[in-house]
Amino acid sequence: MLFLVDEWLGIDKISTLPGHKDLDSETLQFILEEAGKFCSNELLPINREGDEHGATIDNGVVSTPPGFKAAYEHLVAGGWTGIDAKPEYGGQGLPKLVQYLIDEMQGGTNLAFKLYSELSHGAYHLLANEASEEIRNRFVPNMVAGVWSGTMCLTEPHCGTDLGLINSKAIANDDGSYGISGSKIFVTSGDHDLTENIVHLVLARMSGAPSGTRGISLFAVPKYLVNEDGSLGERNGVITASIEHKMGIRGSATCALNFDHAVGYLIGEENKGLRTLFRMMNMERLTIGMQGLGFVDIAYQNAYQYALERVQSKAPAPRPNDSKAADPIIYQPEIKRILLRMRSQLEGGRAMAVFACHHVDVMETSPSQEARADAADLVALFTPIIKSYLTDLAVTSTLSAQQVFGGHGYVREHGMEQNVRDSRITQIYEGTNEVHAVDLVTRKLSGRIGQSADRLFDSWRELFADNRANSDLSVIVEPAEDALARLQEATRWVRAAIESNDAAARGAATNYLRLFALTAIACFWADIVISIRDKDGRFYETKRKTARFYMQHVLPETESLYQVIMAGAESLADFTIDDFSS
Amino acid sequence: MLFLVDEWLGIDKISTLPGHKDLDSETLQFILEEAGKFCSNELLPINREGDEHGATIDNGVVSTPPGFKAAYEHLVAGGWTGIDAKPEYGGQGLPKLVQYLIDEMQGGTNLAFKLYSELSHGAYHLLANEASEEIRNRFVPNMVAGVWSGTMCLTEPHCGTDLGLINSKAIANDDGSYGISGSKIFVTSGDHDLTENIVHLVLARMSGAPSGTRGISLFAVPKYLVNEDGSLGERNGVITASIEHKMGIRGSATCALNFDHAVGYLIGEENKGLRTLFRMMNMERLTIGMQGLGFVDIAYQNAYQYALERVQSKAPAPRPNDSKAADPIIYQPEIKRILLRMRSQLEGGRAMAVFACHHVDVMETSPSQEARADAADLVALFTPIIKSYLTDLAVTSTLSAQQVFGGHGYVREHGMEQNVRDSRITQIYEGTNEVHAVDLVTRKLSGRIGQSADRLFDSWRELFADNRANSDLSVIVEPAEDALARLQEATRWVRAAIESNDAAARGAATNYLRLFALTAIACFWADIVISIRDKDGRFYETKRKTARFYMQHVLPETESLYQVIMAGAESLADFTIDDFSS
Repeated sequence: MLFLVDEWLGIDKISTLPGHKDLDSETLQFILEEAGKFCSNELLPINREGDEHGATIDNGVVSTPPGFKAAYEHLVAGGWTGIDAKPEYGGQGLPKLVQYLIDEMQGGTNLAFKLYSELSHGAYHLLANEASEEIRNRFVPNMVAGVWSGTMCLTEPHCGTDLGLINSKAIANDDGSYGISGSKIFVTSGDHDLTENIVHLVLARMSGAPSGTRGISLFAVPKYLVNEDGSLGERNGVITASIEHKMGIRGSATCALNFDHAVGYLIGEENKGLRTLFRMMNMERLTIGMQGLGFVDIAYQNAYQYALERVQSKAPAPRPNDSKAADPIIYQPEIKRILLRMRSQLEGGRAMAVFACHHVDVMETSPSQEARADAADLVALFTPIIKSYLTDLAVTSTLSAQQVFGGHGYVREHGMEQNVRDSRITQIYEGTNEVHAVDLVTRKLSGRIGQSADRLFDSWRELFADNRANSDLSVIVEPAEDALARLQEATRWVRAAIESNDAAARGAATNYLRLFALTAIACFWADIVISIRDKDGRFYETKRKTARFYMQHVLPETESLYQVIMAGAESLADFTIDDFSS
Repeated sequence: MLFLVDEWLGIDKISTLPGHKDLDSETLQFILEEAGKFCSNELLPINREGDEHGATIDNGVVSTPPGFKAAYEHLVAGGWTGIDAKPEYGGQGLPKLVQYLIDEMQGGTNLAFKLYSELSHGAYHLLANEASEEIRNRFVPNMVAGVWSGTMCLTEPHCGTDLGLINSKAIANDDGSYGISGSKIFVTSGDHDLTENIVHLVLARMSGAPSGTRGISLFAVPKYLVNEDGSLGERNGVITASIEHKMGIRGSATCALNFDHAVGYLIGEENKGLRTLFRMMNMERLTIGMQGLGFVDIAYQNAYQYALERVQSKAPAPRPNDSKAADPIIYQPEIKRILLRMRSQLEGGRAMAVFACHHVDVMETSPSQEARADAADLVALFTPIIKSYLTDLAVTSTLSAQQVFGGHGYVREHGMEQNVRDSRITQIYEGTNEVHAVDLVTRKLSGRIGQSADRLFDSWRELFADNRANSDLSVIVEPAEDALARLQEATRWVRAAIESNDAAARGAATNYLRLFALTAIACFWADIVISIRDKDGRFYETKRKTARFYMQHVLPETESLYQVIMAGAESLADFTIDDFSS
């Protein structure tokens, strides 16, 4: 993390943004190390019991697993709930990039616990940006401090992806508030015992609103009503009906909530609730990608340690110690290959994430309007890629770590199987990865965002052209350049398909997103290697070796993805829905 | 199944083998339908409670989950434990291919339950082939009848893959039996309440035996001693220390067993226990592949049904019903693509399995010695491929089905998450998939087995040459032919590497196995399509469409696998074990 932010991106890119002039390398290092310690010392030790005990519900009251309350108190006391919140609300005012790196650490060490503060974080940013001053002052500081928390209530039993089908109703009260009624499911941290109050952000339809997505409004609905002086009043009409029994993140309470004439406050404009909410959800999607990256890291760390320690079978020549009956399994080329696949994608994926998350800060704080707009386009482009690729990588990596542990990975003891189960949700929530892939091909390749992609491709081309002749670099730059050419051709194909054959473009969405991600990571790797071309020493040499492994072992998948995209539409279209039944 | 066995393979290929002349299409259909009913009516309904309740241990006594006892009684009453056992032992004498197809069904509907009879099946075949007449008569009929069961006790805490490290001891008793002492872990069905007795097949080392794999012998160690008249005697010195808490197959008792001077009987030759056991394990590995295939099937069936029923978002034009607010998600091209990836690999993978499993029957029963030897080579070649590829496919398919269900796939209700957890073990047990890949490259590409591969490649080449000119077939035959050329080149590379750079060949093992499997399935698909080239009608038309989808969407992965194999050795070797720490 430090290498990428401090050396590769450059700490000055952050410190020259308004509000961050004091952020230097030492401060960054201190914060990240403290965050790491908190995760190692407080969150990791309660991760397994959180899974085994799970969140529980008794008579409509939800309890978190043993240890969660104490850890949450420490989270609050350490100021970790307000990292990137504005100081005016009691936050630390640090760059969002720092928050995203902490998201990675917390996501990988104890996702179930992290989720109790994560949606709050999104919710208070939304309220800070969109709510009236009165609501802002009443809710936001307590949420930044972690004394209150927040949720997002979107899904209903009959609608997940398609929020246009929402049935929950909002009826205007005389005092300007609304009575909210309806059933919401899959509400993360919908109820728990960690905070005094919970502020639900609820999508509902006002009486007489248009059908579909254009008739949905957003409301803040507190669990306990809040008096004008900020003290807590009566319980609001929000009932916890049940919690889900899930594959993983079992310590996180995923709730079904019934709203029964609950008092809610309109946030943002009437009937524009989806637009209001999606500003928050887009930021949240990057967070999900960082959760995924956290799982890749903890999977890699565990698999590496186990492979060093587990002694089994003789390694092929030259053996580390010929006199022993067996060697550590890391000397088995298949195990080494698995570890390097994880590591090269982890480091390259983190470079992509640092690039994208830094642009969130630029988008929000740069003094230049043009820079803000350009950054917003890059963030929009990379959001589905970060969300989907990094969470896919999370699951393949936790599976790989489990595989390195063999039978010992299938039992609970080492925690590898829990990582598989916990990481699996990241591919599903906040929109399935397929939905994001369709978002990429249908909305992110045209207009301003599409031009932004083209400018990025051009900037890479120029960089590679300047460095291709260097024979040390060419083994890394050339494969990246070839992959980029394929990506650009596939992009032309997708853009044409969107115009002429929408179904064909959508059927290529996941393959295209993966082609984009693998290629972009190759380009970031090439960029990194170019940036350290004059640096010697083991650390930099290992970066070059890792980059080269990526080019030879991971990047070639783009060849087949390219082929499938360019030639696969016909056989997909030819197979009709009726054919499935024969 | 019926199409593949009856039409494609040809039922006469089976009925002309000794002992199977009465097996006609109707009988086959009847058996498979009854097996399917048993799985649907008896095994599927107890699958979820088996997971939630799990196997339990109380004071050293293991109990199976509710419903398992009744289902096991029905399994025994229906004669399902002795499908391919010889009639002289009370079996049905059916072809092994039929047993393998039933393995697929049972594996997919309730693997945890199936495992209680599965190892017994392997164990009684081993005893029938290898044990003395006395032991055979005393143990085998009861095991075939399912009144007794069997296990394999291989793994010890410090050795899984590398059985040469085994520490368990065997000391000769005066009566010709042995006293077995040691600790075994990961013993599937090591203890339970379904049968009167359990016969453990245990690997142990006799006093003074050579170290490593050449000093290991195999013993039959019953839970209860068996008197000469066949009645049960005293409890033997086998203690159940604990059962594992696992990610999945939680209804299956995976035991740690302590052997304390337990009475055991030598099976096969002294110090040749591994060789004796591996004859059984090879058959068992095909069974694991069939379990994997079962998960692919149940994943596909569930995902297809859900995608038909779940209404969400509008489909791209032309929509099935423009007047509705949303369409079934199967109309989303990404969902359709996911389903077709599953289906095309399922049907193609099953063709490969039918081919391989049929050759087990040829190998065991053909009157021609040459045919038996040739078949044995093909079985040896395909065993690692069936085991690893089909179980990898099981996990990617159960994950895909879960993804189609979205958030509803992450909760327990629909069973999709259980299928992921249950199927995951198939990639690990009976040797991890990586171990089988290394087996393929190091032992299956040279000598007789290697020649067998070359003959198979040549036979496909000839078949394709004869049919390439047919323009209807060429869209399927040509991609298969191109992939075959790549496989043959990669095979040459691997064979050369084995001679010159063993580590390089081993580091390419998993990629090579996958290249082999994907290409072989393409060739089997081409073979199928050629075999039905004169047949009309929806059923056959759908086969052609599915084959074409496979060629355009699945097979292209072989391009990148080929590239990684041919060019990836250097970057893997360059990265040293020390580099991992920097």
